[in-house]
Amino acid sequence: MKNTLKKIALFTALSSSICFAQSTSIVEDFKPSSYNQPQQEYPQVNSQGYVRFKIIAPAADSVRVSLGLGGKGGTKLAKTEDGSWMATTDGPMDEGFHYYNVKIDGGKFNDPGALNFYGSTRWESGIEIPAHDQDFYALNNVPHGHVQQVLFPSPSTNTSRRAFVYTPPGYEKSKDKYPVLYLQHGWGEDETAWMNQGKANLIMDNMIAEGKVKPFIIVNTYGMTNEVKFGKIREFKIEPFQTVLVDELIPYVDNHFRTIAKSSHRAMAGLSMGGMETKTITLNKPDVFAYYGLLSGGTYAPEEIKDKSKVKMIFLSAGSKERPERILDATAKLKDAGFNAVSYVSDKTGHEFLTWRRSLLAMAPLLFK
Amino acid sequence: MKNTLKKIALFTALSSSICFAQSTSIVEDFKPSSYNQPQQEYPQVNSQGYVRFKIIAPAADSVRVSLGLGGKGGTKLAKTEDGSWMATTDGPMDEGFHYYNVKIDGGKFNDPGALNFYGSTRWESGIEIPAHDQDFYALNNVPHGHVQQVLFPSPSTNTSRRAFVYTPPGYEKSKDKYPVLYLQHGWGEDETAWMNQGKANLIMDNMIAEGKVKPFIIVNTYGMTNEVKFGKIREFKIEPFQTVLVDELIPYVDNHFRTIAKSSHRAMAGLSMGGMETKTITLNKPDVFAYYGLLSGGTYAPEEIKDKSKVKMIFLSAGSKERPERILDATAKLKDAGFNAVSYVSDKTGHEFLTWRRSLLAMAPLLFK
Repeated sequence: MKNTLKKIALFTALSSSICFAQSTSIVEDFKPSSYNQPQQEYPQVNSQGYVRFKIIAPAADSVRVSLGLGGKGGTKLAKTEDGSWMATTDGPMDEGFHYYNVKIDGGKFNDPGALNFYGSTRWESGIEIPAHDQDFYALNNVPHGHVQQVLFPSPSTNTSRRAFVYTPPGYEKSKDKYPVLYLQHGWGEDETAWMNQGKANLIMDNMIAEGKVKPFIIVNTYGMTNEVKFGKIREFKIEPFQTVLVDELIPYVDNHFRTIAKSSHRAMAGLSMGGMETKTITLNKPDVFAYYGLLSGGTYAPEEIKDKSKVKMIFLSAGSKERPERILDATAKLKDAGFNAVSYVSDKTGHEFLTWRRSLLAMAPLLFK
Repeated sequence: MKNTLKKIALFTALSSSICFAQSTSIVEDFKPSSYNQPQQEYPQVNSQGYVRFKIIAPAADSVRVSLGLGGKGGTKLAKTEDGSWMATTDGPMDEGFHYYNVKIDGGKFNDPGALNFYGSTRWESGIEIPAHDQDFYALNNVPHGHVQQVLFPSPSTNTSRRAFVYTPPGYEKSKDKYPVLYLQHGWGEDETAWMNQGKANLIMDNMIAEGKVKPFIIVNTYGMTNEVKFGKIREFKIEPFQTVLVDELIPYVDNHFRTIAKSSHRAMAGLSMGGMETKTITLNKPDVFAYYGLLSGGTYAPEEIKDKSKVKMIFLSAGSKERPERILDATAKLKDAGFNAVSYVSDKTGHEFLTWRRSLLAMAPLLFK
């Protein structure tokens, strides 16, 4: 009897692994994702990190969501009795933020239930798998800084460009001057990413409330000033962005905010492609920044840095799922060469925003010492 | 021969009015909409205001866009040789901003080519038909104010709530105190609407650059604190929002920004449902605001206002396509009763954002005199 049951179970598993998994191991405590649009019930996340999708498209032939363990294939939805399409991912997703999209009859759309976030050069659906350490980026009952949208003149690109500037709680009433971290997004993202997906403002608010960090300003702007296709990152030319950042944005920020306008109180960091930009610009302009951060964005070799005395700290990080050995090796070599270098590896995360939220948490207290 | 051609034309028109219109009268100067996502070619708009859509969904059976002269039916797309779906609206759209969505095989999605804007309680696709007077809300080469996202404590709703605060150019360096306009969105929208769809910050930047208006602060927050379904607006209870606005947001703004914190330098205005909120709150709290604005949002009768001496100006506006006579009548009655009342009618626009952008343009110079 047991054997027969096993055989039936195996057959079911082969023909419909999702249903099998659901019936045996998925905890039915699904709740609407915290990134759903108002009053939307789906997508949902359970306590294990499984995601359940529901898409209404009664006359569609095929509905598929790009998220799932299966990698590129994502999750195939099945039609239900009420004409909607549903499925649960074939495994728990990593904690933190994920982009995804929905394929309906061969076209790529967003999930109408979810909020959108700018990634892969488009606004995509986003979902948040609650992380065990999520309190550090939660909206807590603490004083909140402001996030200012500024439109700064950019003669080199002949337009006004947008940046977001985080000013810490107390900035308005204080007469103090503040250090500044210029913090860049990754490929396909834009200047909205660090506050929306990265929750940089809430991370700072929480750290400041706990006295873990001296308040500083954070600035985000768009770093893909020349368009570059994914996978062709080597064709990226840094000059247009370097001009915007160093010759246009920094003077604007120093002119409109109470900053300490010198390299000893200026940091640059970036995630992924933003790390590549950070590395290139900090090496090109050693008199502009004294603190460097590459988050899943490469490494420095000691011989690449001409004047050691100008670098106060180098921070290198990565998720544990993205070959962090490179980061650890590079940090050791930098230390051997006499640099103040610090590495950080985010546990059980990949090339995703939870890695970068945690990296900001680890990096912020080390800046402007 | 001419008669035969006419008959053929008429038959074609009856069987396929879109194709007929295209072949005879539509100017082929379509360009990507200014509200497209980066590098997206569609949707496109021509110089007459026609919109052309292209949606990729090769295996779909039916694709329809909610925008079009036909009203609720919108525009039905037809499959092209390359597997995409295309159509042009059956007539020119009104100048200005329009929300829309895409029906794919019975499901409601957004156009992947267009940016999204929060309306009808969801993020919807948006398109901008260039208006003949668009320069007043364009991103011009003038000094730009900042738009600050603030998270203010709201004990009455037990959370931190979001507001956007426009500070005019020069605010950072000045020591002046500024008047404040509290400006509310309509039903189904949120605190992002006035800056995103309304371009309130650019309208102010441009007016200030031209010396047409004395700089003031604008504050937007979410006004649907109790959820109310469209068409059931009479069930809306003002108290929760009034508490958030008057007892929580205004003190926060007066405490964190350099405001002139008295009723003589405080205005409230709103569009549509935000007008209804404005009317109710200004009447309930005559000591808080001295300037009132209802934009496509109702009227005041003289007898509704208890103490005339507390009202410095009443501004009533509407689009010419939404029965503006009510506005003109009400303004006349207010004037007869001794109020400083001003009406404005936006030419050839309906219950849409161009009406409200123009209303802000007309109202702003009248405030805080």
